[in-house]
Amino acid sequence: MTQKLFERVVIVGPGLIGGSIGLGLKNRGIAGAVIGVGHRETSLARAVEVGAIDEGSLDIGRAVNGADFVVLATGVELMEKLAGEIVPLLCDDAILTDVGSTKVRICSAIEKLVSDRLAGKGGKVRYVGSHPLAGSEKRGIDAASEELFEEALCILTATEHTDVESLQKVKAMWHALGAKTLEISPEEHDRRLARVSHLVHLAAAGLVNIADEDSRSLAASGFLDTTRVASGDARLWKEICLSNREHLLAALGDYIASMNKFRQALENSSGEEIVGLLEEAKKSRDSILKRQKGRNSCTGESR
Amino acid sequence: MTQKLFERVVIVGPGLIGGSIGLGLKNRGIAGAVIGVGHRETSLARAVEVGAIDEGSLDIGRAVNGADFVVLATGVELMEKLAGEIVPLLCDDAILTDVGSTKVRICSAIEKLVSDRLAGKGGKVRYVGSHPLAGSEKRGIDAASEELFEEALCILTATEHTDVESLQKVKAMWHALGAKTLEISPEEHDRRLARVSHLVHLAAAGLVNIADEDSRSLAASGFLDTTRVASGDARLWKEICLSNREHLLAALGDYIASMNKFRQALENSSGEEIVGLLEEAKKSRDSILKRQKGRNSCTGESR
Repeated sequence: MTQKLFERVVIVGPGLIGGSIGLGLKNRGIAGAVIGVGHRETSLARAVEVGAIDEGSLDIGRAVNGADFVVLATGVELMEKLAGEIVPLLCDDAILTDVGSTKVRICSAIEKLVSDRLAGKGGKVRYVGSHPLAGSEKRGIDAASEELFEEALCILTATEHTDVESLQKVKAMWHALGAKTLEISPEEHDRRLARVSHLVHLAAAGLVNIADEDSRSLAASGFLDTTRVASGDARLWKEICLSNREHLLAALGDYIASMNKFRQALENSSGEEIVGLLEEAKKSRDSILKRQKGRNSCTGESR
Repeated sequence: MTQKLFERVVIVGPGLIGGSIGLGLKNRGIAGAVIGVGHRETSLARAVEVGAIDEGSLDIGRAVNGADFVVLATGVELMEKLAGEIVPLLCDDAILTDVGSTKVRICSAIEKLVSDRLAGKGGKVRYVGSHPLAGSEKRGIDAASEELFEEALCILTATEHTDVESLQKVKAMWHALGAKTLEISPEEHDRRLARVSHLVHLAAAGLVNIADEDSRSLAASGFLDTTRVASGDARLWKEICLSNREHLLAALGDYIASMNKFRQALENSSGEEIVGLLEEAKKSRDSILKRQKGRNSCTGESR
């Protein structure tokens, strides 16, 4: 069903996301060989053990030599630096992608690196930004799964500089891993994700932080579901928030205003205003569920 | 295993919660007969059909005649009014409870009604406030389940006026339905629930309300889990919010302040502050999960 798309794939950071890509590429015959790059031998050995990579390497420069596909799957903060090391060493026809949760900064940084390299020679940029909307508050190779991207949406952020063939190949890879794809600009990606993802982490963390211990002892499934993402990795999310600072600040401002509306309505004891705000939310959320029904089984609808 | 605790139970409002109590009382042999009181014949017929009640009645006065246990399971706004109708008609030794999500207002209203009735005769109040921390964003008798209270926590709000024997009996009923119980004051209940439940609904609704349609189209499981409670019934939650107005306003003020901390940290591009706030949340939430492990299987831990 699937065809081999790449001969030698390098996954930089074979953790939850990178490891899941490796498992999919290997188990589905999409790649000839998969090399994992990391900075700890034990993690790489574990990635080999679970079958996410064929071999591990601590030397990123040596690993990308001869690769026809490289995936950056580290935290967003590290990606720019790593791209700076990799881009000058890549083969001319190698394709590069990343799986960062924000796209404007990394896309413009890599496009700059590639065009510096292409300077004078012309040609299109064989880099395509990816962001698979799949994951977990868990991290690390032991949480990786070949099924992680099944029915998930992967956003691809191509620009006017993007090589079309590379885009098609990256798209084909995500489809082979079970994901659906959507192409939008890096800017539009960051604007939207600020609202449906990055802000959500801050909102959840805030709820936990203002609940004293006595209150928390009464937390039931409503509280636990609402705050699930607050169990995510703090440093990882700090990086994401900072790399999408402007859009996140706009979303945060709107959110605080929206909370102030509730406060005002409560101060006025205005049941009508409160119902209006709650009904607006219910209607919008129910419409998301309706649209996604069938697309994604993980809607949390039944709890 | 369980023993019959009551001869004739009346459940006012056999929906999700009331219906689940009925199913448990009947299927576990805890009650002789269960009568459901509602204002629509079709809903009552459905409650009989699913086995949640033995018979339905549109006449609350007639239904409570001869009952030894009455459960108020309507929305909180209606409870005070219904209690005013019921209390004068109850048998002397009948026990009354409610399952409202807020407790100060309903408890003081019912205690007032009962002491008016007892005036001159003395005696303790055979009313005990209950709040089972179980539910769903769904409602209605078709969502009811005998298992709803298994491993759930039910808060009981006794006061100095409460008849001890009645408290013990209500407690025994919740245990027979599979719940654990905790006794705290109505005041303490409302203070804590404002933070782990009522505010959570407003926070989730606010997240949905500031996500435009383009952004919502990218909602993945993180957003859907975080906002699950925003699919709850708007009128029901409006009543709850208004009936816990003061505590909820305090919690909302703290929450807005907590969001402003994130805003300040982002404006200052202070990664350290952001990590600090996120780590505090992660630590607290993880400790709730750890404490609850085994107590409750519905932690949302694995998604």
